[in-house]
Amino acid sequence: MDYVIRTAKEQDMVDVLGLIRELAIFEKEPDAVEITVEELVNEGFRDNPLFHCFIAEVADEIVGIALVYYRFSTWKGRSIHLEDLIVKESMRGTGLGSALYAEVLKYAQSKGVRRVEWVVLDWNTHAIDFYEKTGAKLLKNWHLVQMDKEGVNKFVSKL
Amino acid sequence: MDYVIRTAKEQDMVDVLGLIRELAIFEKEPDAVEITVEELVNEGFRDNPLFHCFIAEVADEIVGIALVYYRFSTWKGRSIHLEDLIVKESMRGTGLGSALYAEVLKYAQSKGVRRVEWVVLDWNTHAIDFYEKTGAKLLKNWHLVQMDKEGVNKFVSKL
Repeated sequence: MDYVIRTAKEQDMVDVLGLIRELAIFEKEPDAVEITVEELVNEGFRDNPLFHCFIAEVADEIVGIALVYYRFSTWKGRSIHLEDLIVKESMRGTGLGSALYAEVLKYAQSKGVRRVEWVVLDWNTHAIDFYEKTGAKLLKNWHLVQMDKEGVNKFVSKL
Repeated sequence: MDYVIRTAKEQDMVDVLGLIRELAIFEKEPDAVEITVEELVNEGFRDNPLFHCFIAEVADEIVGIALVYYRFSTWKGRSIHLEDLIVKESMRGTGLGSALYAEVLKYAQSKGVRRVEWVVLDWNTHAIDFYEKTGAKLLKNWHLVQMDKEGVNKFVSKL
C-alpha cells in the first residue's frame, strides 16, 4: 500500500479531530472530547506550538495520526510524550500504525531525548504486545491521577 | 510554622536538584536521576521555559517544591501536569505539602485548563488517600509505557 507520512498542517486539523473522536469511541469515552478545531490550530500552529503532529495519508486521505509533545521529567529532563497514535478503523492491520510509531521514535532520536513515554489501556492487549515487542517497558505500579476543571474550582473555592 | 511559597528562580536549582534526588530515594530509584543543574536552568529559565517550579521556604531554606508543566490532551486541550511535589523528609506532616498542592491548583485555575494530571505509585497509599480526599480521581486502568534512549536507538537502528 502506498502511503505518505508527513508533518501535519493547520488545515489538517478538521480531519485530525475526526480521528481523535474515533479513538475516543474505541476507548469507550465518546463524550470526553471537548477540544475544538480552533484549539488544535491555536495550540499547534502559533507561537511556541505545544505539540507536533504526524499524518499518514493514503491517496490524499488522512487515515492516521501520531501526536507528540515535550514533557519535562525531573529525572530524565526533556522527554517526548506520545499522546495519540490513531489509525482509521478501516485501515488497521496495514502497517500504518507501525510506520507512524517508527516516525515518532525517529523524531525522538533526532531530538536526543532520554525518554519517550505514553499510556495504554490495560485491556488493549494488542497494543501492549506490540509496544513490548518493540522494546518499550510497561510500568504497572503507577496510577494516573486527574482533577478536572470542576474539581479544581471546587477545591480552590474551599481554600 | 512560618513558610513562604514562591516561584523558583534560576539560583534555586541546586537545592531543587537535591530534593529531586531525595524523592528518587523515597521512590526506590536513587540512580534514576540523570538530570543536571545546568539542564534544570536551561529548560526552566531560558526562552520558552518547559516547566514552572514553586518553592516552599522556611527560614530561607528551600524545603519543598512543586514542579508543573503544560501538556496537550487531544480530549481536553492544554492541561497541566504535576511532575513532582516534594517536601523534605524532616518537614513532612507540617502542612507544607498541602500548601504546595493548593498553589498548583490555584495556578491551574488561573490558567483555565480543563485538567490537571499526575501519577502516583500504587503503594503510596498516604498520597493516594490525600489526592482522593481533595477530589482528584485515580485511574487504575491505564499503564505507563516508556522507552529510554537506548531502546529508541536500538529500535531505530533496525528500521
